[in-house]
Amino acid sequence: MADAEASAELPREARPDRGTLQVLRDMASRLRIHSIRATCSTSSGSSAEIMSVLFFYIMRYKQSDPENPDNDRFVLAKRLSFVDVATGWVGQGLGVACGMAYTGKYFDRASYRVFCLMSDGESSEGSVWEAMAFASYYGLDNLVAIFDVNRLGHGGALPAEHCIDIYQRRCEAFGWNTYVVDGRDVEALCRVFWQASQVKHKPTAVVAKTFKGRGTPSIEDAESWHGKPMPRERADAIIKLIESQIETSRSLDPQLPIEDSPEVNITDVRMSFPPDYRVGDKIATRRACGLALAKLGYANDRVIVLDGDTKYSTFSEIFNKEYPERFIECFMAEQNMVSVALGCASRGRTIAFASTFAAFLTRAFDQIRIGGLFESNINIIGSHCGVSVGENGASQMALEDIAMFRTIPKCTIFYPTDAVSTEHAVSLAANTKGMCFIRTTRAETMVIYTPQERFEIGQAKVLRHCVSDKVTVIGAGITVYEALAAADELLKQDIFIRVIDLFTIKPLDVTTIISSARATEGRIITVEDHYPQGGIGEAVCAAVSMDPDIQVHSLAVSGVLQSGKSEELLDMYGISARHIIVAVKCMLLN
Amino acid sequence: MADAEASAELPREARPDRGTLQVLRDMASRLRIHSIRATCSTSSGSSAEIMSVLFFYIMRYKQSDPENPDNDRFVLAKRLSFVDVATGWVGQGLGVACGMAYTGKYFDRASYRVFCLMSDGESSEGSVWEAMAFASYYGLDNLVAIFDVNRLGHGGALPAEHCIDIYQRRCEAFGWNTYVVDGRDVEALCRVFWQASQVKHKPTAVVAKTFKGRGTPSIEDAESWHGKPMPRERADAIIKLIESQIETSRSLDPQLPIEDSPEVNITDVRMSFPPDYRVGDKIATRRACGLALAKLGYANDRVIVLDGDTKYSTFSEIFNKEYPERFIECFMAEQNMVSVALGCASRGRTIAFASTFAAFLTRAFDQIRIGGLFESNINIIGSHCGVSVGENGASQMALEDIAMFRTIPKCTIFYPTDAVSTEHAVSLAANTKGMCFIRTTRAETMVIYTPQERFEIGQAKVLRHCVSDKVTVIGAGITVYEALAAADELLKQDIFIRVIDLFTIKPLDVTTIISSARATEGRIITVEDHYPQGGIGEAVCAAVSMDPDIQVHSLAVSGVLQSGKSEELLDMYGISARHIIVAVKCMLLN
Repeated sequence: MADAEASAELPREARPDRGTLQVLRDMASRLRIHSIRATCSTSSGSSAEIMSVLFFYIMRYKQSDPENPDNDRFVLAKRLSFVDVATGWVGQGLGVACGMAYTGKYFDRASYRVFCLMSDGESSEGSVWEAMAFASYYGLDNLVAIFDVNRLGHGGALPAEHCIDIYQRRCEAFGWNTYVVDGRDVEALCRVFWQASQVKHKPTAVVAKTFKGRGTPSIEDAESWHGKPMPRERADAIIKLIESQIETSRSLDPQLPIEDSPEVNITDVRMSFPPDYRVGDKIATRRACGLALAKLGYANDRVIVLDGDTKYSTFSEIFNKEYPERFIECFMAEQNMVSVALGCASRGRTIAFASTFAAFLTRAFDQIRIGGLFESNINIIGSHCGVSVGENGASQMALEDIAMFRTIPKCTIFYPTDAVSTEHAVSLAANTKGMCFIRTTRAETMVIYTPQERFEIGQAKVLRHCVSDKVTVIGAGITVYEALAAADELLKQDIFIRVIDLFTIKPLDVTTIISSARATEGRIITVEDHYPQGGIGEAVCAAVSMDPDIQVHSLAVSGVLQSGKSEELLDMYGISARHIIVAVKCMLLN
Repeated sequence: MADAEASAELPREARPDRGTLQVLRDMASRLRIHSIRATCSTSSGSSAEIMSVLFFYIMRYKQSDPENPDNDRFVLAKRLSFVDVATGWVGQGLGVACGMAYTGKYFDRASYRVFCLMSDGESSEGSVWEAMAFASYYGLDNLVAIFDVNRLGHGGALPAEHCIDIYQRRCEAFGWNTYVVDGRDVEALCRVFWQASQVKHKPTAVVAKTFKGRGTPSIEDAESWHGKPMPRERADAIIKLIESQIETSRSLDPQLPIEDSPEVNITDVRMSFPPDYRVGDKIATRRACGLALAKLGYANDRVIVLDGDTKYSTFSEIFNKEYPERFIECFMAEQNMVSVALGCASRGRTIAFASTFAAFLTRAFDQIRIGGLFESNINIIGSHCGVSVGENGASQMALEDIAMFRTIPKCTIFYPTDAVSTEHAVSLAANTKGMCFIRTTRAETMVIYTPQERFEIGQAKVLRHCVSDKVTVIGAGITVYEALAAADELLKQDIFIRVIDLFTIKPLDVTTIISSARATEGRIITVEDHYPQGGIGEAVCAAVSMDPDIQVHSLAVSGVLQSGKSEELLDMYGISARHIIVAVKCMLLN
C-alpha cells in the first residue's frame, strides 16, 4: 500500500533533523505571509509547506542561475521565479512537466527532476488525465506531481471535496506510484519526496490534503473567504499571528544540481544538401514534410518529433523510422501533445515539431494560446488542411486553422505549396524563434520550385507576371495550382494575370501584395482552402484596407461541408481554376 | 467484484433464448458484411456484436420515428442512422451522451436511456475523462458507455493494448459501475446490458474486448491491415465466409419505448417584461447576462444553464440561485461543458446556455467546431473578454474568441454593449437556431439604451450621426464607450464622427456599415478589444473590400500583454478614446 510505504522510516542520511524541520516550517510561514501580502487574501497559501520543502530541502538547483539546464524543474499554475513555463491557466502544467521529464530521461539522460504542483480544481481538466496516462506509459520516474487538495474551487466545494481516496484511486489507476500525505506536515512531505526519488519506472503522485487560509482562525477551509480580498487590518492581524509562530531566523540553501546535462546546440540548423526534387515530380506536402523532418533530424540530433496517433497520415512516421529514439508517440491526446512539446522545448533543450491533422489542433487551442503568450519556441505541423482532404469527411477538414494560428502573437505560419517549399519551411521553422505552424496538404501536388530556389519568411513568390497583367491572384498551398491553371486558361483568351504564392501567411508579404496590386490596376483575387473568416482573404483585405485604389475579391470555402473527391470539392466550394477565371472576368467587367 | 457480478445469471424474463441469441449473432454478421462492403476494410467491424445486441435486443425505440423523444439514445463516433449527435471526431461522444442522460434523468425524468460506444483509442482524449467524472458525480444511472477495446489505433498498437484491466481500473476509479466482457459473446453482452439497467446512482461502463477484422482469417487483430482497404476479391471472399456463418434469416424488432417524456415547447420564448434598467445605470454586461438568464428561466422552464467553476464571475450564479434544478455545474472542464450542452439541446429538449470566461472557451474549440458542423442549437456565453479584464492577467483575457466563433458556420455572435442590449442578446439567442455566442465584459459600463429599444440580429445601432460626419467609428462592447467619448471630445473641436454599435459581429450589418461609410466620405475606423486577426476590423475590411471608395483603419490589441487597470490597458493597447481621436485626425489629414 502506498500509504504504508509513505509512513516508512527514511534512511538516516535523508532524514531532516529537528532544526531543519523547524526552518522548513518557518520558511512556509514566510511564504504564507508573502502570499497574504501580495494578494490580500489567504487563498494561495495552502501549499506553503509543500513549496518550502521542495524549494529548500528537496529540489537541486542553482539559485543564482535559474535557467541552468541541470536544475530541477518546477511547474506551477502561477507565475513564480524559476518556473519554466508559467502556465497562465490551470490544467496544462502537468503536460509541460511531462515534456521536461521526458527530455530529462530520454534526451538529456540527466539527473534533473521535475516537480509539478497542481490544485485539486485543475484536476477536472481532461488534459491532466492525458498527461497522467502519458507519464506512466513512458515510465517518467523523474516526475513528481503534487495535488494540493484544498477542496475549494472558484465556485465553491469541488466534486471530490476532501475525498483524498478518490484522487489516490485515480492516480493509481493511471499507473502512478501514489502517496497520500498531510500537506501541512513538513516531515511527512520530506519523506514522500525522498521516497519518490527512489521509485523506478513510475512517476509519483503526492496527494496532499491542505487547507486554504491555513493557520488563520475562522478563515481556514471556509468557503466564503475563498479568493476574496480581506480588509488590510485583518490581513495585518493574520500576518502577526503567523509571524508569532516563526521560531528561527535561519534560512536553508537548496542543494546544488548534479551537472550531467549534455551541452546542446539548437541554433543555425542546416540541411546537409539541397532539396532532392525535380520540377514536375508529384508529391504531397505532408509527405515532403515527413521527409524534411528526417533530413533535419540528421542535421541536428536535438530535433524531436511528436505525433498524436496519426504518424502514417502526417508522414512523421518517416522520422520515426530513422530516429525512433527521438520520436514521441502521444496517442490521441492533442492537448497533451502540445504541452509536452512546450516542455521538451523549454530551456532550449530540443527543437520540437508536433504533428497531427490540422483539424485536430483545434483541441489544443488553449495550449497553443498559452504557448504563444509565453513566446514558446515550438513548431506545429497540421496536415490534411481544407476541403482538398476529400473523402475523409467534413470533421477532418481543417478550415479554421489559419484563423486560429493567426491570432497567436508572433506565430509564423507557413503554408508551403510544393515539396521544395515544404522542406524550406521545415528548415526555417527550426531556426525561427517563437511558435511556427506549418500547414500541409493531403493531396499530391506538383513540384514547382527548383532545388536552388531561396525562401524567406514573409517573402511571397510571384510565379507569373508580365507587363500586361490585369489582376493579381493570391493563393497558397493547393490553390496556387488552381491559380496557375486559371492563368494558363486565361492566357489563351489573352487575359494576363499575376499569380502569387504567399509561402508564409504570417507575416504577410504586404510589400509584394501592394506592388502587385498596383501593377494590376488595383485588382486582387485571393483564393484559399479555408473558411473566409480569419483566413488569407481577410488578412489581405486588412493589409490593403487603407489603400483606396485596391479592391479585393476573396474566394474561400463556405456552406455545408460534404465528402467527395478532392478536385470535385475544390470546385464545389468555389476555389477551383474555373471559379478563379469567372472571378477574374467579373472583376474586369466592373 | 464487477467481473463476478457480470457472470451472474439473468432472471428468466431477461434471458434471451437460444434462437434469439443466434439471430443476434446473425445480425452481427450482417452488420459486419455491411461494414466491409461500405469501407472495403475490416477495421470498423469489431463492434458488430455490440451493435447487434444494443439495436435489436436492449435498446427501446421506434424504428419508424428515430427522433422520438422517448427513444433510447445511441451516440457513436461515426455517422449512423438514429445517432443523435454524429460526433465527427472521437473523444466527444461521451460528453454529449452525458448531456442526454442528464436531461433524461433530471429535466425529462423519463425512462429513456443513453448508450455511447467508444473506441479504445479515443479514451486517450482527456475529454473522455472529463465526461467520466461528470457522469459519476451526477449519478447518471441511465447512461452506459461501451469501450470497444480492439487494441489498435491508427498508428498501431495503443498504450493499454489489450490490458482490459487498465480500462476497468480507470473506469472504477472514476466512479463507474464497470463490467468486463468478451465483445464477441452476444449472450454475455445481453447479460451486462441488462445488469446495467438495474444499477442505481451510477453510470455503467462495459469494457468489451474485441478484435478488428473478427472472423476473417489472417486479418483478425493484425496491425498491418488496420484501416487499409483490401482488394475487392479478398473482401468478397471474406464476405462469403461470414455469410456462411449466418444460420437464420429472422430479424428482431426493437422493443418499443416507454412514452413518458414530457411535451416541451422551446419556441417563441418571450421575457415577461422589458429590461428594467435606466439609461445611465452602471452595470457590467456579464452581470446583466446572469440577470437575463434568470428572467429567461422564468419565461420558459426548459431554459438551462451550465457553467465551468466560474459561476460567481460569469454571474450565472444568479440563475443558479433562482433555478438550481436547472443549473449544471460542470467544474473546470470546458470541453465537457460544451459537449454536455450539445447533448442537453439535442432533440430540442432544452434551451441550453453554457458560460465561462471567453478565454477558457479556446479549450473547447473542437467541440464548438463539431457542434457548428452539425448545426447544433446551443448558446455559449464568454465573459471577461479583452484587455478590459484588467488585473486578472493576460492568460485570462480573451482576445481570440471572436476569431474563433466567426469561423463557426452559421454561428451568431452577439457582443452587447450595455445591460439592455445584453438582455436582448440573451432573448434573441434563445430563439435563434444554430449556435449563438454572447461576449460579455467584466467592467461596469453605462446603460445607453432605453428599455423600449428594439434589437435584431444583424442590425447595428447608429449612436451618433449628423450630416457633417467625417468618419464612421465602429465599435462593440467596451469600445463603444471609447468611441462615444472620442465623439464628445472631437465635437468640441468641431469634428463630427458617426458612432456605430455593431451589436452582432456575425452576421455583420454590412448595409449600415457601407451606407455610413459613404456618408462619411468613405472613412471607417474600427476599434475592438480583441486581436486584429479574425476580429471586427478584418470582418469590416472584408465586407467593404470590393468598394474602392472605402478606407478602413483598424484599432485592435497587439503586443505583449500585461496586467493593469482596465482603463490603463485600453489606453496602453491603443483602443481608448485618445487613440480614436488620433486616428480620426490622421485619417482626415490624408
